[in-house]
Amino acid sequence: MLLSEMNNTQLCKMKDELLQQVNAYGNMKLNLNMTRGKPCKKQLDLTTEVLKDVDIYTNSVDEYGVDCRNYGELYGIKGLRILLAPLVGASEDRIILGGSSSLNMMYDVMMKMVVFGADEHSAPWGTGKKVKFLCPSPGYDRHFAITELLGFDLIPVDMTDSGPDMDQVEALVANDPSVKGIWCIPVYSNPTGVIYSEDTIKRLAWMKTTAEDFRIFCDNAYPVHFLDQYDTLSVNILDECEKAGNPDRTFVFSSTSKITYPGSGIAILASSKRNILSYNKMLSKQTIGPNKMNQLLHLRAFKSFNDILVHMERQAAILRPKFDIVDQILRRELEGLGIAEWTHPTGGYFISFDCMEGCAKRTVEIAKNVGVEFTAAGATYPYGKDPLDRNIRIAPTLPPVEELKTAIQVLCTCVKLAGVEKLLETNH
Amino acid sequence: MLLSEMNNTQLCKMKDELLQQVNAYGNMKLNLNMTRGKPCKKQLDLTTEVLKDVDIYTNSVDEYGVDCRNYGELYGIKGLRILLAPLVGASEDRIILGGSSSLNMMYDVMMKMVVFGADEHSAPWGTGKKVKFLCPSPGYDRHFAITELLGFDLIPVDMTDSGPDMDQVEALVANDPSVKGIWCIPVYSNPTGVIYSEDTIKRLAWMKTTAEDFRIFCDNAYPVHFLDQYDTLSVNILDECEKAGNPDRTFVFSSTSKITYPGSGIAILASSKRNILSYNKMLSKQTIGPNKMNQLLHLRAFKSFNDILVHMERQAAILRPKFDIVDQILRRELEGLGIAEWTHPTGGYFISFDCMEGCAKRTVEIAKNVGVEFTAAGATYPYGKDPLDRNIRIAPTLPPVEELKTAIQVLCTCVKLAGVEKLLETNH
Repeated sequence: MLLSEMNNTQLCKMKDELLQQVNAYGNMKLNLNMTRGKPCKKQLDLTTEVLKDVDIYTNSVDEYGVDCRNYGELYGIKGLRILLAPLVGASEDRIILGGSSSLNMMYDVMMKMVVFGADEHSAPWGTGKKVKFLCPSPGYDRHFAITELLGFDLIPVDMTDSGPDMDQVEALVANDPSVKGIWCIPVYSNPTGVIYSEDTIKRLAWMKTTAEDFRIFCDNAYPVHFLDQYDTLSVNILDECEKAGNPDRTFVFSSTSKITYPGSGIAILASSKRNILSYNKMLSKQTIGPNKMNQLLHLRAFKSFNDILVHMERQAAILRPKFDIVDQILRRELEGLGIAEWTHPTGGYFISFDCMEGCAKRTVEIAKNVGVEFTAAGATYPYGKDPLDRNIRIAPTLPPVEELKTAIQVLCTCVKLAGVEKLLETNH
Repeated sequence: MLLSEMNNTQLCKMKDELLQQVNAYGNMKLNLNMTRGKPCKKQLDLTTEVLKDVDIYTNSVDEYGVDCRNYGELYGIKGLRILLAPLVGASEDRIILGGSSSLNMMYDVMMKMVVFGADEHSAPWGTGKKVKFLCPSPGYDRHFAITELLGFDLIPVDMTDSGPDMDQVEALVANDPSVKGIWCIPVYSNPTGVIYSEDTIKRLAWMKTTAEDFRIFCDNAYPVHFLDQYDTLSVNILDECEKAGNPDRTFVFSSTSKITYPGSGIAILASSKRNILSYNKMLSKQTIGPNKMNQLLHLRAFKSFNDILVHMERQAAILRPKFDIVDQILRRELEGLGIAEWTHPTGGYFISFDCMEGCAKRTVEIAKNVGVEFTAAGATYPYGKDPLDRNIRIAPTLPPVEELKTAIQVLCTCVKLAGVEKLLETNH
């Protein structure tokens, strides 16, 4: 029965039952953290099996004669650029390997836009000037945080099942030169799990922007992070931008953070030849280069891209039951009540959960009170403000299955209680 | 006999002999690269011996319970911050460990000054505004390059035997609010090998600056890179700044790049509690953290700071003969001619060589023509312009001893030839 069709007597009865459940959870002294999309210990152990016997010391010279122990190779070693190229969809000469954080590379590119400008013809985006940045929402809080830190105006754009609402995007970029860029996660988008459609990617590449230095920050964080089977995007955004005559429009980022170890993976940046050349020119002033021994480790751990896919299938086998259990519990507890919807991702790290309008904060609050912490409600929107207060990001990967079950059961109880409270308040 | 006291006949005769020598070198088809302060293969092998059997996989959890494989620990792992603290002279709570490049941390801090400002009370240094930066010269070209990239005015300051000429520095900072900072290498300064005196460090800490957001970028690149014996600075610049009531004035950088592997060391930043706190606040937006597995490797490779010193003594044993042979050849070939002076460093990676005014470029050019490449003349000055065209940086560490001997003999011949040419031209 839909909650909205219940009368106050029914709602009050339900509220009492839910409060009892909440009390029972409170008595369990739970301490569960569901806030972060972190790989779990089993996944880390899987990677340890792959890395622990890789020898990078007996011979530290790569196949091109580079001693990976010494200075040099600003772009990162060539063998690994070739191996990881499919993650970003660019040839190895348009790839730069970074340190252990692709977020840091995004920040770095963004800082260069602000201080140096997109290219020699463009003014720096500047400090203290109004720059607008498009934020498909719900989206990734740490993307939004970088552009917020820089004082940009964050403009929310609705997410649809096929990517950002392109009608909105096209309208926003068409008439305002201060709209300088957009955040995108084209595959298993955080948190919805959406895969951008061919049409979305083509429109991103071809759309007319007033700002000539408009840039797409395309964070391909989960290119091989399937739950069921590997599938490449049918359209390569860098190629499409080139076709469209906008070759320099897009920076594609990726990393091995959720392939090998989150704390010590390899970050990747790919773009047009021109962008990479100009980036590298600045890089040569900025750093003595990335950690090449870690690159050699990754290169020797995986003989081919297929080895990576085999490793990711093993990771998927750990994660699949977790995503399944979340969906099962949500369906069992919430189906037919008309108070919640959630996504059914085929990869990535998150499930996006929408409850009744105005209930997300309250839901997260009740859960926190009984010892289960979810990502702050609103975090998936610019400035942490979900205009409808309905989105919660579920991160099923880190906790063991039993803890995850408890956490999601708590979530269901809390979301029902928040819904009942809301309806009683409205009916009043 | 002083070259300057020779008559033209003597000079012409000498020129003929030198040209013959140069031709002989040319016939040897040399291909020697003396441009970079890179550790040599033997040094790398020494580090391989230390690292190759360190196990970071059987147990990747550090003594504080941090699984170094996963996300987290923005500051870097605590054990390593404690171990490396003596490199920067600060307690572990005022230290941030970075990636593999301390230069990158300097660039990063500098970019934050430009975009965000030194603190909440200070305006950003800004893009397109005139910022002046003091550059003790001869100094490190890659320091100068960062501030040049940002469009700052680079103001040369003379280097003395006890550090930057503090009379000049104090005069420059006293009356001009656009003078925002200074580059310093307090120990075995690049390229002179100078160790800053107590007095220099005290004056840097205590001097009155018009700019309240004046910052010392103190690159302690060679704190344990002695040739003879380890010696700490008698004055700690961070402590002295605190005493002077200027606690936030100094950022100290260091790294293990020339302790372990240049390409995969650990960069270090230390400063006041306030600076570190504010830096870390931004860091939390910018990155998911540094490579902690590499940190764990370093932590387990050296049980104590004394272990590091023992390792550095072994490195010194490799480098000492190289510095000695350079000095021997220079003395044998050039002493008494009055055309060259050079430093006698007790540590670090360079010897600073001064030839006759107006002869450095020509010397490097002749050497290059016979296949021996030295660091570009002028590189040790802002904008690559040595006003007296006399300084050449000698980097003795990379080549094997026999190659080094040849390279320095070539240098001596070239510097004599350039001197003779100059004198003949002047006498004309």
